[in-house]
Amino acid sequence: MPKQFDVLVIGGGPGGYVAAIRAAQLGFSVACCEDNPYADPKGEPRLGGACLNVGCIPTKALLHTSHLFEEAAHRFAEQGIRIAPPEIDVARMQARKDGIVSQLTGGIRSLFKKNKVTFLPGRGAFVGREGANWQVKVGDEIVEATQVVVATGSRARHLPGITVDNRLVCDNVGALAIDAVPKKLAIIGAGVIGLEMGCVWSRLGTEVTLLEASPKFLASADNDVAREAARAFAKQGLTIRLGVQIGAVDTRENSVSVAYTDADGTAQTLEADRLIVSVGRAPNSDGLNAEAVGLALDASGRVVVDDRCRTNLPNVWAVGDVVRGPMLAHKAMEEGVMVAELMAGQAGHCNLDTIPWVIYTSPEIAWVGKTEQQLKDEGVDYKVGKIPFMANGRALGMGETGGFVKMLACAKTDRVLGLHIVGANASELIMEGVTALEFGASSEDIARICHGHPTLSEAIHEAALACDKRALHA
Amino acid sequence: MPKQFDVLVIGGGPGGYVAAIRAAQLGFSVACCEDNPYADPKGEPRLGGACLNVGCIPTKALLHTSHLFEEAAHRFAEQGIRIAPPEIDVARMQARKDGIVSQLTGGIRSLFKKNKVTFLPGRGAFVGREGANWQVKVGDEIVEATQVVVATGSRARHLPGITVDNRLVCDNVGALAIDAVPKKLAIIGAGVIGLEMGCVWSRLGTEVTLLEASPKFLASADNDVAREAARAFAKQGLTIRLGVQIGAVDTRENSVSVAYTDADGTAQTLEADRLIVSVGRAPNSDGLNAEAVGLALDASGRVVVDDRCRTNLPNVWAVGDVVRGPMLAHKAMEEGVMVAELMAGQAGHCNLDTIPWVIYTSPEIAWVGKTEQQLKDEGVDYKVGKIPFMANGRALGMGETGGFVKMLACAKTDRVLGLHIVGANASELIMEGVTALEFGASSEDIARICHGHPTLSEAIHEAALACDKRALHA
Repeated sequence: MPKQFDVLVIGGGPGGYVAAIRAAQLGFSVACCEDNPYADPKGEPRLGGACLNVGCIPTKALLHTSHLFEEAAHRFAEQGIRIAPPEIDVARMQARKDGIVSQLTGGIRSLFKKNKVTFLPGRGAFVGREGANWQVKVGDEIVEATQVVVATGSRARHLPGITVDNRLVCDNVGALAIDAVPKKLAIIGAGVIGLEMGCVWSRLGTEVTLLEASPKFLASADNDVAREAARAFAKQGLTIRLGVQIGAVDTRENSVSVAYTDADGTAQTLEADRLIVSVGRAPNSDGLNAEAVGLALDASGRVVVDDRCRTNLPNVWAVGDVVRGPMLAHKAMEEGVMVAELMAGQAGHCNLDTIPWVIYTSPEIAWVGKTEQQLKDEGVDYKVGKIPFMANGRALGMGETGGFVKMLACAKTDRVLGLHIVGANASELIMEGVTALEFGASSEDIARICHGHPTLSEAIHEAALACDKRALHA
Repeated sequence: MPKQFDVLVIGGGPGGYVAAIRAAQLGFSVACCEDNPYADPKGEPRLGGACLNVGCIPTKALLHTSHLFEEAAHRFAEQGIRIAPPEIDVARMQARKDGIVSQLTGGIRSLFKKNKVTFLPGRGAFVGREGANWQVKVGDEIVEATQVVVATGSRARHLPGITVDNRLVCDNVGALAIDAVPKKLAIIGAGVIGLEMGCVWSRLGTEVTLLEASPKFLASADNDVAREAARAFAKQGLTIRLGVQIGAVDTRENSVSVAYTDADGTAQTLEADRLIVSVGRAPNSDGLNAEAVGLALDASGRVVVDDRCRTNLPNVWAVGDVVRGPMLAHKAMEEGVMVAELMAGQAGHCNLDTIPWVIYTSPEIAWVGKTEQQLKDEGVDYKVGKIPFMANGRALGMGETGGFVKMLACAKTDRVLGLHIVGANASELIMEGVTALEFGASSEDIARICHGHPTLSEAIHEAALACDKRALHA
């Protein structure tokens, strides 16, 4: 007799573990399966998905350490803090990061216990249907469940002809385990992951070059944001080559050479100690045995879902990176909660229009809602309020005066349509914008809200005032 | 013929300069007078008030430097950043701080020029009425204006028998100019200013003792917040003695001795290199010549105003620290905008119930709305959602896992009534709570808003979920 559950969640990442916990809270008997050990030293399956194990969380730990290192190396003197040049102990830095990851992945195990979610180690693959139940093979055993949530996430996309060994040529997994400061680091792909890893190593002293196929930098960001970020990264010493075409990658004992054609059509070669390939992520749908049950996938291999994350099969849902929409952990979690609540007959929802985007470079970049170019394309008449951090008292105190806040509001209704932030702490500041968008706030609403002084958030206040051409401090 | 203006603002602090700029934006001819040079090296009057010159802004600069110093001294090693013990160059630290203050106070001069506000150096004092105009003496000349805004701010309260020389015995002015790390620092008053200055010097190596008359620590904060903060400060080495009665202060060549009776009634003596007296602030109404025109003051010397900052005299308004309500720069600015808009016949408003409170210690402390004890006193039935930063991925990455987020919501309507944060970045995170309160958000509203991952703001999300006993990560 196979194990039976009300709900089986396939995949233990942010979308999956959250769906499992929420479903259990709502009274279902729930199991969640996962087979990926990620960087587990014993090779045991780990919960938390790519985000927690080899993505957001370890990256943030390295970004924090490297940020402090750079402060110490270059900005302590002006503040009156006297030190000899700092040295980085990469092993120690990585061990701290690994400790954080282990603590959090273990924490999800505890949350499963607390919420009575059964953890099943093993990959989940559809077998078929048995009465009202779905049969799924997990490892060697068959599990039956009335409802199935596919939350198998994504993996790094690789490039044909470039073998990732995660030693010399790394994707996100190897990039997070580099054991010494490279002299030269090449990165293919100047997206979020490439930029964040570039920032980490650049601050620690590496000469970093990013090669990007697109002729436009950070194409999904607001143009002003992309321009400001490009300027800041250049100032920090990151070299970013746009519009390149990657050729052959030649791996030697301890170095890599990347042939590429630059935007002018000239053949170039980039020599480096390490290469990171960060050219996007591919949905993990191939292990699901989707064909056995007729689960519909799109041309890119994503599970096809509607706006409530329902697949084409009854009682089969899919959430997170394996479906359409931004590949962001918090979007996956929202969808996880939604499907659990829908299963329980509640009115779960997930508003894809108010998902914040965050890039944890320095300066940080975050936005929510529409970019200026989107509004132009859509023919929306809009107002702009743009305020630099330059004269913000808190930014001056922190020595972080780069960047700006840019608010976009409807010219007719004054409704806030987008908020774009480049600067220190943008990742946290953006939540005021998300909240404003969720409540359909006008720029005047934000202008009439008292903002603590001195805070970086005052720049949001001023940007709102600037939408009405009445900024007080600019 | 005296100079004539539509609006004269007496005092160039946050309430005053903002009122002046906003009134000018609305088409009035505006002058603003100020006589206080604060720390200006040439002794010339400076704009920005106590906040900018000898308050919030310089404090934040020192807090930032001392925070980095402490990180370097105690927390670099665990991250793999190897340095020899750092040394602090106090002169350099103070020079940086002075530079920031000069830049910002000069910036307000530029804003005055840009907005065509006339700056009048000199103290403003009422003379009388001439037709529809008020006559005010500014320095040696008489100025006439139809509307007058009193924005004279506040000054440090001193204690009888304790002479402040701003060398050995300091108020906020001297406390911000200390030129060497004291071995021992005594602070009378464990309020916001005392705690912030205590944090600065404690991090730089000073043994800090705070003597507080109240038997309760941070009495205006939520009890949980006060308890958590007290624990954190004690761990950092701050000694805080509550319920003490201050006796004689004896000043010697280079040291101070403070006699006090402790909470048990035992006579004690505290020896220190420096003493900071931070026992609150007194409104600056004595130079106004209020009696000459019959401007009503209350028993504490505050200008009496209604909820729209109207005084008892026609066309005389008063804002900021010189009137009732919290002595916070951002509250003063809100009032400054309000009175300018009311003068112009607009519907200015200032909601004192949604003013955020911020203390820039480490951990930072911020709150908005009601405390739990206030709700109890008012007999309001409430729900609590409390989430520690301990398991927050961003907090772990930053190594800042102390503190918590506590949300209070109405048990009947679910409306958010208060948000209380102790932890890194609380000063910025609180704006989500302020925005929520302004929009009358329910805890479920916040629970259904997608929060970026990994961010500290996720703890607010979880606190909202916890109000409904459905936290996902706790």
